[in-house]
Amino acid sequence: MAQPSQVLPLQGGKVEVGETQEGNGTRPLLDIRGIDQELVEKIEYDALVWSSLHGLVVGDKSVQRSGKVPGVGMVHAPFALLPMPFPESHWKQACELAPIFNELVDRVSLDAKFLQDSLSRTKKADAFTSRLLDIHSKMVEINKKEDIRLGLLRSDYMVDEQTKLLLQIETNTISCSFPGLGCLVSDLHRSLLNHYGEFLALDSKRVPNNPAASQFVEALAKAWTEYNNPRAVVMLVVQADERNMKTLAEIDAEGELLPDGTLVVGGQAIAVVYFRAGYTPNDYPSESEWRARLLMEQSSAIKCPSISYHLAGTKKIQQELVKPNVLERFVDNKEDIAKLRKCFAGLWSLDDSDIVKDAIERPGLYVMKPQREGGGNNIYGNDVREALMRLQKEGSEADAAYILMQRIFPTVSHTFLMRNGICYKDDTVSELGIYGAYLRNKEKVILNDQCGYLMRTKASSSDEGGVAAGFAVLDSLYLT
Amino acid sequence: MAQPSQVLPLQGGKVEVGETQEGNGTRPLLDIRGIDQELVEKIEYDALVWSSLHGLVVGDKSVQRSGKVPGVGMVHAPFALLPMPFPESHWKQACELAPIFNELVDRVSLDAKFLQDSLSRTKKADAFTSRLLDIHSKMVEINKKEDIRLGLLRSDYMVDEQTKLLLQIETNTISCSFPGLGCLVSDLHRSLLNHYGEFLALDSKRVPNNPAASQFVEALAKAWTEYNNPRAVVMLVVQADERNMKTLAEIDAEGELLPDGTLVVGGQAIAVVYFRAGYTPNDYPSESEWRARLLMEQSSAIKCPSISYHLAGTKKIQQELVKPNVLERFVDNKEDIAKLRKCFAGLWSLDDSDIVKDAIERPGLYVMKPQREGGGNNIYGNDVREALMRLQKEGSEADAAYILMQRIFPTVSHTFLMRNGICYKDDTVSELGIYGAYLRNKEKVILNDQCGYLMRTKASSSDEGGVAAGFAVLDSLYLT
Repeated sequence: MAQPSQVLPLQGGKVEVGETQEGNGTRPLLDIRGIDQELVEKIEYDALVWSSLHGLVVGDKSVQRSGKVPGVGMVHAPFALLPMPFPESHWKQACELAPIFNELVDRVSLDAKFLQDSLSRTKKADAFTSRLLDIHSKMVEINKKEDIRLGLLRSDYMVDEQTKLLLQIETNTISCSFPGLGCLVSDLHRSLLNHYGEFLALDSKRVPNNPAASQFVEALAKAWTEYNNPRAVVMLVVQADERNMKTLAEIDAEGELLPDGTLVVGGQAIAVVYFRAGYTPNDYPSESEWRARLLMEQSSAIKCPSISYHLAGTKKIQQELVKPNVLERFVDNKEDIAKLRKCFAGLWSLDDSDIVKDAIERPGLYVMKPQREGGGNNIYGNDVREALMRLQKEGSEADAAYILMQRIFPTVSHTFLMRNGICYKDDTVSELGIYGAYLRNKEKVILNDQCGYLMRTKASSSDEGGVAAGFAVLDSLYLT
Repeated sequence: MAQPSQVLPLQGGKVEVGETQEGNGTRPLLDIRGIDQELVEKIEYDALVWSSLHGLVVGDKSVQRSGKVPGVGMVHAPFALLPMPFPESHWKQACELAPIFNELVDRVSLDAKFLQDSLSRTKKADAFTSRLLDIHSKMVEINKKEDIRLGLLRSDYMVDEQTKLLLQIETNTISCSFPGLGCLVSDLHRSLLNHYGEFLALDSKRVPNNPAASQFVEALAKAWTEYNNPRAVVMLVVQADERNMKTLAEIDAEGELLPDGTLVVGGQAIAVVYFRAGYTPNDYPSESEWRARLLMEQSSAIKCPSISYHLAGTKKIQQELVKPNVLERFVDNKEDIAKLRKCFAGLWSLDDSDIVKDAIERPGLYVMKPQREGGGNNIYGNDVREALMRLQKEGSEADAAYILMQRIFPTVSHTFLMRNGICYKDDTVSELGIYGAYLRNKEKVILNDQCGYLMRTKASSSDEGGVAAGFAVLDSLYLT
């Protein structure tokens, strides 16, 4: 999952957005170069005013106290000035996949043996995954059941320019970012097209409605209802320096389990635990945070996500699911299996020696991905060759911390990118995320929906690029 | 009218908010001192987050480019943490007065002789009013008629602590400020009371709905419809450093009148001119701005306000209307006259020697107000005595630039004031503004409504006060 910092400028010339892969396609879908400069300036101005009035804002790191005190030091979030053209057929395909992926994650999460077996080698190479698996093992030992299961997920896709296939980048099962700001950009673009669409020959109705934020909140509310304790609350687990919420360390200090399994934090019963932290090793600086995670997992509170959901979202599991005959263990409907397979990119373990050999020969066609979450850690190009050869020489278990993925080359568009009040023009590539909400209480599926989307667009020109090189913005879709 | 800068900190120890008068009443209506500190901090946090998400923001002068480029350097607008208790009977009285004042302004604006005669002495003492009267005279000469008349007005009131009377401070007929941000504070307070009302024994339904912004926009749209030229636009006249709008100097450079009276600016026919500038001498640094004002006045465009409406809002006219038998020239309905008289504070010309004598003896009971608009220019206390004695000695016409008004001593409340992310506690006084919209096409009244309100609260502790001394915040009402 991408964090807010990832839409802010990144250090150096490397371009990374979440799990976005770099590409160098050729055909712009909408050539903005022909748009009259005076018109662009009007749209810019209106877009910036709209941002201020509708909360499309983030903290401005250059302002003191920004990010520590709400309401001070705000600047508009980086955004694309106009929505990104996107084929309607691919949009429909991605939406249809959402409930199938929701169900798949749930089914995988129930198969403790599959999770443990698939991740057994990763466990040795990756300390973070290992700690998560330890908690999972303890839950297996005490035969812990999660009757009520809540997933707020996001599957990310890119369209491969050559094959025109919609290919999945990954499924996020914890702390999916930007349901709030992403919605606002769709509203912004629809508002701009209502005003300027006739001059651009664009129709605001082609920007899909994006109710991600409200539907995520509704799903949390429905989970709370299922928990059926009117005095219990929804707890947000956050990184440090926020208030009215709890950090993992605070939960360790103030949390306890009642004999009936109720989680109580600061004297308050907890119905739902929503994680906006806990997905990266950085969120666990001491044993305190791990104790908190275990405490919550042992409780009857609804975890969003449970440890099993969290593990089901790892890259290793994604890679396992691509193997022949694995999907069939979890999905009954043959059509659904076909739909899933159609969007699977090539994914391989590093113990596949043929693939490793090919990747050393043609490193430009692969991406090497570590288990580590948070983006910016992927390996591209000649670095892939070097990394693979180093791992071969070492001959250790360290290769189990990585997977190999087919490199996707998405369509390149020429785009207006707004950052810090300034408009940049650059070649860009985009990644589409589809949010999904899943809620289940024992045998009853209460929610299984696609709910909104996240479009992220980043400058594709790298070191040699213009001023915009190296940053990503929030975007929306324009269906073509 | 108050300008945005007036909710920002003012220099020195003097406390001035728009036309607010200082007071030193005694009885707090809601004692916030008893509220639990932890609860206050939660409300503060939520209020600041709400501000960021809902556009309750202003430019932060300490950030470079703030105010020049939209979307950068934002900070929450200063606001009161909780709504200000206010008697429901006074609220209803103020709302009932709105259409009566709307109609009164319109009627006064039609009486050219009354405007010229009333302001004849002011003309000699006040250069700005003199220029406005020159334009007015030219319009009388050419027998210019304004068939369609649009007023977006605001009458300001305070409740006198001793007499419990709702007394009018002034009626603003040009560039009434804060319909936008004022609405948001009502929404903020209702949202906070929905969450925390039960802990405070406050009911969010007692905060009146405040549709000022949308109703002003609707009135502009209705005026545009009456103008009946689908290709003509609404033009906003603004101070420098804004875009997508026009300054007076730009209108002088780019504006022209067609033979049929149509105002064309930059090639675009203008249906409605909405002034967010032009009310202060500072807005007319050269003859260019005066030419622009005259050009617009000569045109068939609907001016909000026309020169007559502008003059009808001067303090001198307010003072003339208080004189015996003057209201009767403009208002037919006796009940309406009684309602207006009930809210009139004492107002006198400086040629009333008995009053001037009394004001020199008891200066604390009077406020001396110059014609000059924009607040911060009123004279209080011993300064009143000195100013009056100086004018008497000079024996010139300079006294005609001022009026005397009864000083109102409003109720003092203890209040939480939020500014720049910090909560201050201080004794405060409040001023209620009621917005009105009036639209008429010849004999047909299309709109005559009360539409929302503006509550401004300022620290009443002056030089000797706490940290909060000297700043004002946006507030809403809590009906008691």
